[in-house]
Amino acid sequence: MSRSHYAGIDVGGTFTKIGLLDQRGRLVAKDQIPSDGFSDKKLFAAHVKDALVRLCRAQRLRWSDIEGIGMGLPGPVDTDRGVVLSLTNIRKWERFPLSASLGRVWGKSVFLDNDANCMALAEARLGAARGACTALCVTLGTGVGAGLIIEGRIYHGPFFLGGEIGHIPIARGPQCACGGAGCLERYVGNSAILRRAQSLMGPKMTLEKASALARRGDPQARRLWQETGEMIGWALSGVVNTVTPQVIVIGGGVAKAGGVLINAIRETIRRHAMKQMKVRVRVKRALLGNDAGVIGAALLVKA
Amino acid sequence: MSRSHYAGIDVGGTFTKIGLLDQRGRLVAKDQIPSDGFSDKKLFAAHVKDALVRLCRAQRLRWSDIEGIGMGLPGPVDTDRGVVLSLTNIRKWERFPLSASLGRVWGKSVFLDNDANCMALAEARLGAARGACTALCVTLGTGVGAGLIIEGRIYHGPFFLGGEIGHIPIARGPQCACGGAGCLERYVGNSAILRRAQSLMGPKMTLEKASALARRGDPQARRLWQETGEMIGWALSGVVNTVTPQVIVIGGGVAKAGGVLINAIRETIRRHAMKQMKVRVRVKRALLGNDAGVIGAALLVKA
Repeated sequence: MSRSHYAGIDVGGTFTKIGLLDQRGRLVAKDQIPSDGFSDKKLFAAHVKDALVRLCRAQRLRWSDIEGIGMGLPGPVDTDRGVVLSLTNIRKWERFPLSASLGRVWGKSVFLDNDANCMALAEARLGAARGACTALCVTLGTGVGAGLIIEGRIYHGPFFLGGEIGHIPIARGPQCACGGAGCLERYVGNSAILRRAQSLMGPKMTLEKASALARRGDPQARRLWQETGEMIGWALSGVVNTVTPQVIVIGGGVAKAGGVLINAIRETIRRHAMKQMKVRVRVKRALLGNDAGVIGAALLVKA
Repeated sequence: MSRSHYAGIDVGGTFTKIGLLDQRGRLVAKDQIPSDGFSDKKLFAAHVKDALVRLCRAQRLRWSDIEGIGMGLPGPVDTDRGVVLSLTNIRKWERFPLSASLGRVWGKSVFLDNDANCMALAEARLGAARGACTALCVTLGTGVGAGLIIEGRIYHGPFFLGGEIGHIPIARGPQCACGGAGCLERYVGNSAILRRAQSLMGPKMTLEKASALARRGDPQARRLWQETGEMIGWALSGVVNTVTPQVIVIGGGVAKAGGVLINAIRETIRRHAMKQMKVRVRVKRALLGNDAGVIGAALLVKA
């Protein structure tokens, strides 16, 4: 039997998700394991392989049916050398030849990339930006990540730092951990939105509640997401006029606020983008949800 | 004798510059002719050919020594089909198969592109960004144009509108002819700078005088260019974090203000870019000056 499936691994701070993709790009099986103790690379390799082998068995697949393994990581990755450049949670992986090392242990080709890039690849190939050759996929969460797809491929840029739209300055604002100041992320990252939500709607407000309230039409909650969307759309307008993507995909937890957020982003882009772009760029909600990271990681194998 | 030279044409509103590039990229001859009457395409073809033939003769070259002809135009160009998409000055050229038509008349391959893209190509191949695979070349003038070089090639994007950094919104400001609002160009285009120069230094101030004064250390003139550079640097910081260029080249008339402008751009980028980028991106003055457009146009032939 020929090698028929791709494995994807999405390494997160708390959980690591794994999944199997068939030749047609369907996620046929998935699971997750805790990320505890992953600074021990041997432990990581063993735990993830065990979990993948279990997934394979449940699908009546053998280890040899896996054509290759892709892995998304929460930091910039030198994809040419298969090396993590910086990783807040798992320090021992930095500058280590992770791809080569895991490849040896697992007996497979292992491809690494940044997790936001993996999500972007998944949405571009199989999700909301399917069919677009140039797309920007934004992930709204604790941070504001993004992956840029140019001519169908992940854009890494010369330093493997491409697409960091979360660090576009939007105001003469506070210092950011990135080294800049006034970054978009400081205004529309989860903690900033939560602060504003609580100042508008009381100290017990959560982002989940604010999202649910907005969907039910609550004016204060709608105002919160409207303003959030305007700030995101404002920053994205500059990207629209520079990179000229066909599609902008909005995903991540915050995107659950729904229509009001997406519409505010869309309208702000319509107000600030060049006329040739405002009629062309489409702003869409992500389609693949929490699976995007694993799917995109698996797609690295054939990217 | 083999075909040994490339011709470049830089079509401007008032003058059209022409030049010959040898195999090593040296501009061996140049000239300019008035752009009057160029909506008549036959007249244009005849006048430009005459001027090119004269240039060839002076260099003891024959028409057959020209390998191909590149042309830069002040508007977006569909470079795949060799068609001008929009052109303020010469309306009859829009949507017309200009490349094919001129190619037939001249008996040469004719390549078209936007003029800012041509300048960027020239600076990337032979000027200030030589050796960089990813660069942004900004031209400050009436408008704020730019060309983006990605992996050594002009980035056009799916709509041939890539790199329009002049239309990045930087404030909740005035409507722009582009269809957006608060665009960088509204603040640092020649007319905006002149307005501020005159309000700071009296109604007789010109941009040339303000540049000369700044070079001599005049505090008001330095303030003018300092503030201009900060606005440009602010907008460029977002581009730095998204596209991650190795080099940013600053050219155009306004760049003559010199050190204070470039330094203000550089410092603002250092303040607002991610730490990994602020140590990597270099901000340089353009090297090729007024010849960049013609040189870049000629380089289209071998691009």
